[in-house]
Amino acid sequence: MRDFLPEDVARRQHVVSVIRNVYEAYGFVPIETPAVENLSTLLGKYGEEGDQLIFRILHRRDALKRALAREHPGELDLGDLALRYDLTVPLARVIAEHRELPRYFKRYQVQPVWRADRPGRGRFREFFQCDVDIMGTSSLVAEAEVCGAVAEVLGKLGFREFTLRLNHRGLLRSLVQTTGIPIELEGVALVAIDKLDKIGREGVAAELRQRGVPEAGIVGISPIFDAVADDQAHVRERVRVLLQQGSASAGLAALEELERLESLLCATPAVNRVRFDPTLARGLGYYTGPIFEVSVPDLAGSLGGGGRYDGLIGMFGKHMIPAVGFSLGLERILVVMEERGMFPPLSTGPDMLLCWIGSQALLERVLEVASILRGQLLGARRLRVEVFPEPAKLGKQLEYAANHTKTAFTGIVGEDELGAGHVVVRNLASSEQRSVLLGDVAATIASWSAVR
Amino acid sequence: MRDFLPEDVARRQHVVSVIRNVYEAYGFVPIETPAVENLSTLLGKYGEEGDQLIFRILHRRDALKRALAREHPGELDLGDLALRYDLTVPLARVIAEHRELPRYFKRYQVQPVWRADRPGRGRFREFFQCDVDIMGTSSLVAEAEVCGAVAEVLGKLGFREFTLRLNHRGLLRSLVQTTGIPIELEGVALVAIDKLDKIGREGVAAELRQRGVPEAGIVGISPIFDAVADDQAHVRERVRVLLQQGSASAGLAALEELERLESLLCATPAVNRVRFDPTLARGLGYYTGPIFEVSVPDLAGSLGGGGRYDGLIGMFGKHMIPAVGFSLGLERILVVMEERGMFPPLSTGPDMLLCWIGSQALLERVLEVASILRGQLLGARRLRVEVFPEPAKLGKQLEYAANHTKTAFTGIVGEDELGAGHVVVRNLASSEQRSVLLGDVAATIASWSAVR
Repeated sequence: MRDFLPEDVARRQHVVSVIRNVYEAYGFVPIETPAVENLSTLLGKYGEEGDQLIFRILHRRDALKRALAREHPGELDLGDLALRYDLTVPLARVIAEHRELPRYFKRYQVQPVWRADRPGRGRFREFFQCDVDIMGTSSLVAEAEVCGAVAEVLGKLGFREFTLRLNHRGLLRSLVQTTGIPIELEGVALVAIDKLDKIGREGVAAELRQRGVPEAGIVGISPIFDAVADDQAHVRERVRVLLQQGSASAGLAALEELERLESLLCATPAVNRVRFDPTLARGLGYYTGPIFEVSVPDLAGSLGGGGRYDGLIGMFGKHMIPAVGFSLGLERILVVMEERGMFPPLSTGPDMLLCWIGSQALLERVLEVASILRGQLLGARRLRVEVFPEPAKLGKQLEYAANHTKTAFTGIVGEDELGAGHVVVRNLASSEQRSVLLGDVAATIASWSAVR
Repeated sequence: MRDFLPEDVARRQHVVSVIRNVYEAYGFVPIETPAVENLSTLLGKYGEEGDQLIFRILHRRDALKRALAREHPGELDLGDLALRYDLTVPLARVIAEHRELPRYFKRYQVQPVWRADRPGRGRFREFFQCDVDIMGTSSLVAEAEVCGAVAEVLGKLGFREFTLRLNHRGLLRSLVQTTGIPIELEGVALVAIDKLDKIGREGVAAELRQRGVPEAGIVGISPIFDAVADDQAHVRERVRVLLQQGSASAGLAALEELERLESLLCATPAVNRVRFDPTLARGLGYYTGPIFEVSVPDLAGSLGGGGRYDGLIGMFGKHMIPAVGFSLGLERILVVMEERGMFPPLSTGPDMLLCWIGSQALLERVLEVASILRGQLLGARRLRVEVFPEPAKLGKQLEYAANHTKTAFTGIVGEDELGAGHVVVRNLASSEQRSVLLGDVAATIASWSAVR
C-alpha cells in the first residue's frame, strides 16, 4: 500500500475525471459503499483462492475476549467484518437492499478495494477499481453499453492500441462438458484456463491434471488453445465444430449471442477492438453469460474486465436480477500511462508564492493581499496563492520559490507596494518582473503563461 | 457504515468540490494515504480511549496459525495492521518519510477514517475528514491560513452563522498547573474539560474527582467555566488574573500569542467569527499550541477542529518539524446542510432516456444515435443519455422515464426517425414534443431547460 504525493494525486484525478465524464455521458450514476462489509457478504463469492485473500477485521473488547476464551478459537470466531474485495459484490448487496432504485439501474463506482495478495507491477494490496454496471435487463444492449463506455474511456485517455477480448461462460461450460471434464470440476477447469496468459498451455494442462481432470478431458479441451492464434473466422469455426460434435446446443446458442453482441459493438466506440477468445475464462465464480477483458500490447494481464452475472443479486434477496458490469483497474492504467508518457501537463501546486519584506506588523496587510489575489480567476479556476510564512530576506524567499516549489511566479510586497496597492509579479523562469496593480495580478500571470 | 446512493454522492461531491477549490486557492496540494497503516504507527497517538477505537486487521494464514498456537494469544499477537483513525498521524508519517517534500508543505486530504465508536447524529464508524495542514513553520501565519481557509469553506457552503473557538494548549497547561492539579493528571484533566459541552460543569467535576484530581484542583480550575458566558474582554481578563496569580509566565505568553493570532485572523475570512474559549481542550493528545474548533448554533459538538502539533512528526523521524492543521468532518457538515436545506439544485442522472420502437434489428442504429448524442455538449459538460435497453411499447418506455427515473426528457426514434436523421424530443414535464435534427438535440434540451 502506498502514499500518493501531489503529482501522483494529479495523475489519478486526471484519469478518474476522464472515466467519470464518459460514464456520466452514458447515463451511469455514482454510488459509494463502505470499505467494511460483513464477512458473510463476501465469503463464497470469489472462489476458494479469493476467500483466502480477504482482509478480516478483528473483534474488539468483549467479543474478542469471548473468542479468545474458547479452547480453540478459529478464524471465524475472531471477527465478522472484512474489507471490500471488489465493487461488484457490494453492488449486488445494495441492489438487493434498496428496492427503490430504478429497474434499469446504471451505476458507476470508483473506490479502493483490498486484497492480501502478493504485490507486482501495477498490482497492490490496496487498489482502485472503476466499475460500471447495468442492472435489470437480459438485453445485450447492457453488454454493448458497458463495453462501449470502457472503449471510449481508453480512447479518451489516449490508448491507441487495445483489444477487447470476448467469450461466454455458457459456451465455456458447454465446451468443458462436451470435452469430458466432469461437471463438478467445471469451476476448477475455468480457474486453470484463466491462467493461460500467465502459465502457458503446459501449465494449464499440469494444473488440470493436478486438480483431478482426467487425461481425456485435457486432450478434449486443448483445441481451444490452438484456436487462439488463428484468424477470427477460423476460431469461431473450430469452436462451432467442437460444440456440434458434442451436440452442445446451449454452447451454440451462446456462440450466436456473442455474434450478435459483436455486431452491436460495431455501433459503439469498441468497433474494431473486439476479438473472440474461447480461452478467456475470468477467475471469478459469479459470471453467467458474456465475459470481457481489455488488454494492451506489451502488458501482461489486463487493464480490466467484466461480464454478465445474472445470479449474484439473487444471493442477497428474493429477486433474481440480471446484471452486467465492467471493472477497470486504475493502477494498471496509471502504470501503462506513466511508462508510455501518456499524461498531458497537469498543474500541481500554487501559481504564486507571495513574498513579503519588512516588519511582522505588515502581516495583516499581507494576508489581506493574499485574500484579494485568491478571489481572482485564472481561466476557469481561482488563482492559487501561497504566502511565505516567516520573515526572511527576499533572496531567501525567491530561492525557496525557485528551488523548492513548482510555482512559476512570485509576488513581492513591502511597505511601498502595500501603500500603493501594487504587487511586484516576478516570472521565475525569465527573472522578468513587473509592478502591477493588485487587481491585475491574475491577468498578468495569464498573459505571461500564454507567452511561454 | 452506510451506502451512498446517487443523490447522496451528488451532495457529498458538491461539498468536497467547494472544499477543494478553496483549499487549492490557498496553495494547499492534495495527498492520499492508504486506508491500512501499521498498528504501531497509530498506537499511543490518540490517548487511551482512542487506542480502544482502532479497527485492527487480523493476521492471515501462517501468521494467524502461529498466533493461535500460543497459549494465551493477546490482541497484539493477532495482527499488526489497522485502519486509518485520522488523517493527521498518517500525514506526520508521510512527512517524516518523504524528506523530498518542500519545507513549508501545505497539503489537503479528503479521505475516510474508521473508528469503532458508538454512532450518533452525523457520527458514523466510517466517516470522511477534510484536512488542511501546514508543515515546517512556527509562524502564526500557518494558524491564520488554515483557519481562514476553513472559514471561507463554510461561507462558500452557505453557512451564515458559525463560530471559531480558539484556545491554546500552553495556556491550558499553565492553568492546570497553577490551579493545583498534579502534572501527571494534566492529560486526564484536559480530556475531562473537553467534555464540557456534553456533560456540563458538574459532569466535568465528577470526572475529575473520579480520575483522582484533588478537590483543590477542581475548585481552582472552575473559574474558567464561569468565564465562558462573559463577554470576550472579561474572559481574557479573568484568565489573565488566574495566570498572574499563579505566576504562570508560559501561560501569559500563550495568551499573548492568541491575541496576535486573533489580530491576524481579522485579515482573513474568519474575521468576526473568532471567540476565545479557555475551556476548549480538544481530546487528542498531540496538540502543543493554539487549538481551534468550529461550531454552528443548534448543533451539539463541532463541524471540525484542529491546532498546532509541533511534536508529532518528530515521533516518526529524526527531525522535529512544527505543524498546524484543521480537520472538517464531512458528515457533520452534510447533516447540517440537509437539515437546513442548504444544497443548491444538483443534477443526478441522465438528461435523456432514448426510447426506440421497432424491431431489434434497429438496435445498431439506435446505439449509433446514442453515441452521437453523447458527443453533444449541454453547457460545459456532455449530454447524458441512457438507452432503454429492451424492446417495449412506447407507452411503457415513457411511463418508465416519467415515474422511475429523474430524467426530464426522452428521445424517441423509430424506423422513420432513423431514416431521416431525426429524434423526437419530449419534455416529460409538459408532454410537449418536437421532432428535431439529430445534431440539434442538446440545443433543444438546453432551450427547454432555460425556459422552465
